[in-house]
Amino acid sequence: MYAIMPAMGDGSTDQIYERAGWGQRVPRGERPGVLVVDLNRGFTEPQWPTGSDLSDVVAATSRLVDAAHEANSLVLFTTIAYGDADIDGGACAWLRKAPTMGTLREGSEPVELDPRLPRRPTDPLIVKKGASAFFGTDLAAALTALRVDTLLVCGATTSGCVRASVVDAVQSGFDVLVPRECVGDRAPEPHAANLFDIDAKYGDVIDLDDALGYVASCSREAPAV
Amino acid sequence: MYAIMPAMGDGSTDQIYERAGWGQRVPRGERPGVLVVDLNRGFTEPQWPTGSDLSDVVAATSRLVDAAHEANSLVLFTTIAYGDADIDGGACAWLRKAPTMGTLREGSEPVELDPRLPRRPTDPLIVKKGASAFFGTDLAAALTALRVDTLLVCGATTSGCVRASVVDAVQSGFDVLVPRECVGDRAPEPHAANLFDIDAKYGDVIDLDDALGYVASCSREAPAV
Amino acid sequence: MYAIMPAMGDGSTDQIYERAGWGQRVPRGERPGVLVVDLNRGFTEPQWPTGSDLSDVVAATSRLVDAAHEANSLVLFTTIAYGDADIDGGACAWLRKAPTMGTLREGSEPVELDPRLPRRPTDPLIVKKGASAFFGTDLAAALTALRVDTLLVCGATTSGCVRASVVDAVQSGFDVLVPRECVGDRAPEPHAANLFDIDAKYGDVIDLDDALGYVASCSREAPAV
Amino acid sequence: MYAIMPAMGDGSTDQIYERAGWGQRVPRGERPGVLVVDLNRGFTEPQWPTGSDLSDVVAATSRLVDAAHEANSLVLFTTIAYGDADIDGGACAWLRKAPTMGTLREGSEPVELDPRLPRRPTDPLIVKKGASAFFGTDLAAALTALRVDTLLVCGATTSGCVRASVVDAVQSGFDVLVPRECVGDRAPEPHAANLFDIDAKYGDVIDLDDALGYVASCSREAPAV
Repeated sequence: MYAIMPAMGDGSTDQIYERAGWGQRVPRGERPGVLVVDLNRGFTEPQWPTGSDLSDVVAATSRLVDAAHEANSLVLFTTIAYGDADIDGGACAWLRKAPTMGTLREGSEPVELDPRLPRRPTDPLIVKKGASAFFGTDLAAALTALRVDTLLVCGATTSGCVRASVVDAVQSGFDVLVPRECVGDRAPEPHAANLFDIDAKYGDVIDLDDALGYVASCSREAPAV
Repeated sequence: MYAIMPAMGDGSTDQIYERAGWGQRVPRGERPGVLVVDLNRGFTEPQWPTGSDLSDVVAATSRLVDAAHEANSLVLFTTIAYGDADIDGGACAWLRKAPTMGTLREGSEPVELDPRLPRRPTDPLIVKKGASAFFGTDLAAALTALRVDTLLVCGATTSGCVRASVVDAVQSGFDVLVPRECVGDRAPEPHAANLFDIDAKYGDVIDLDDALGYVASCSREAPAV
Repeated sequence: MYAIMPAMGDGSTDQIYERAGWGQRVPRGERPGVLVVDLNRGFTEPQWPTGSDLSDVVAATSRLVDAAHEANSLVLFTTIAYGDADIDGGACAWLRKAPTMGTLREGSEPVELDPRLPRRPTDPLIVKKGASAFFGTDLAAALTALRVDTLLVCGATTSGCVRASVVDAVQSGFDVLVPRECVGDRAPEPHAANLFDIDAKYGDVIDLDDALGYVASCSREAPAV
Repeated sequence: MYAIMPAMGDGSTDQIYERAGWGQRVPRGERPGVLVVDLNRGFTEPQWPTGSDLSDVVAATSRLVDAAHEANSLVLFTTIAYGDADIDGGACAWLRKAPTMGTLREGSEPVELDPRLPRRPTDPLIVKKGASAFFGTDLAAALTALRVDTLLVCGATTSGCVRASVVDAVQSGFDVLVPRECVGDRAPEPHAANLFDIDAKYGDVIDLDDALGYVASCSREAPAV
């Protein structure tokens, strides 16, 4: 199991988790998809209240996106955006707990995808309002319609929308891989703690090289979409 | 904000989170409901591979359940149970990552609710297969049908099914409270790390006394169900 | 029960349905919301392949929308729109059955709401890809967050997106009313057959005057959003 | 297109539907699954208020289930069952519209599957409370986890739970087939009207022989679960 949680140095948690059988590796299918969660400017650029400098995550994710395009695998992107009814009207309960997210207003700059990402026009862009990329969106339906069986989850933040999307992905029937270099957070402790939880219970935290090799091994002749 | 994550002593995460506006308090509605997540014997008794001794959590949760019954508020319980198709047949992707969960077989002892809980026959018991109490269940529909606006989430484990249920609750439109004494985990670090995330982003981590007072203040004449 | 299905003149279906207990009237709550399904130009204007002249439905719905605004009740609109991945790439299974729906391309004229509708900028506009306004959208979450208890469903088509939305509304925990003058279809038989099913099983088909009176009776001081 | 709606004899609806492009045939995948909706005794036996004699539907469906077992394809069954909170407490909004459904009480005879069905112990049995087999259940997740791509929907009633399940199936990303002999209803007009809608918009209504041949052509060596 991935030992990345700083405070877990005495080994007691590892022993408890081994007894509970956490940390198994998942099977990998023949039709991977790459989900890039919320690498919009509001999260990848430090000038926004919700943001931090995630240039390394954008670069690593871009390598995986390029590899997926090359292999004719599906790549999907998400961003978050809220309207008047959400921000001022209470239509989104999450904004009552996290009002700063309301700076991600429909049509504004922080909602735009980071321009360094090599998104193709045919890659779906899913606009969401919750933490999970699956909640209130057609993501599961699109993955099913395109017969994706294994989901590589990238993006931000590890302790927020990535974690929530990983949990929903495995609940929805997909095997999940999280390339460590492709996810990021604004603070290191929640990042580490959530990678620990993900790797123990929901999906395999792997190296980017492993992810690149896996995606290449599933190369297909026809484009995914 | 609730400062409970051990590794966060230097204050840098707190500063980052304050800038991002995390940790606001949620409004509290007039119709609370109490959701007791997975206090079945497989999680509350130490003899099962998925379990640990959660007697204190069971006791604290029982106090809140009694108070909710007294106030004619809705109380719901969940348990996890899997069938042959899930355990041996691959129908539940989560069991491919977490096969030990397959010890929670339909009809077996670890699936039974902890007998110390004061569940009434009219309290709904929701059987689930995912981490979140909302995923693949009619929980959101039942809460909506009964006009619940605020959800108090209790149970186990903090880093697993409680966390996932809290995220789905706020995504589903409910304001969320988590009484600290009423949630538990098999290891202390993930417990603390997930309470930190929950309190920062999804729901208010509060004291049991606060929860008891709030529930009593919403007392109604007619029973919830 | 609403007797509107032309072929049901011999009364046998009525007898069978009476025995099964279909056709009861639903309770009406204190916080209604008005959902306007797919009155975008692609359905309300006859020049589009998916359209027909629904001017009467637009006029009747506009009266109800005005009344809801006046009463400070929530009004939501939906439209359908597809991207390249859906239309050419197979990401939406429904378009494999119903490829003509692919004329509703993101950014194109038939996706625009009918300009005769008195939508306010604060009324949520939900963009969907399925038949039901609830599927793959945050509609249920928004209704819950705003404490709506009763949903008046208007729009097009009766036999398609209205029917699917009504079924999901009652499944999601809401009591449902369908003002007869406010729903329409391109052909009369499916329109009548689906009103029959809706009224028997899922929500009350009522007169517009009844709907207007009910909405006015729930008038509130503060705006819904 | 399937011309089965009695009242549509003048051809005008056919012309309108042809212009709208309805009635296309869906692609058929390599991994079919058979979903048997609500052939529990409360619907297949005439002595229950919700029932009628569906012996022919049970016989035809049994043939398809046998064929799917032989081909090692997935077969799933659903039933409906309600608890005290639903029946007396209002936790299920649908029972406020359709209170007779409350005769389907957990543990009672009408909830049992029709004993003539050749269900194997490993075939999942999904207990639901809504019209759609997908709503509030883990059905979509199980189909995805087992890589089903095409769903053959059988059961009862055509105008209720079959229709709702078909709509959700295609929305969820599956291609849908409905073998005509394998679906039934308590009254002929709603049966015909809903087959018309299904065939026009959501899935192909086909002959049982066609379904049997398709399932046999997808025979696999390993069992589905």
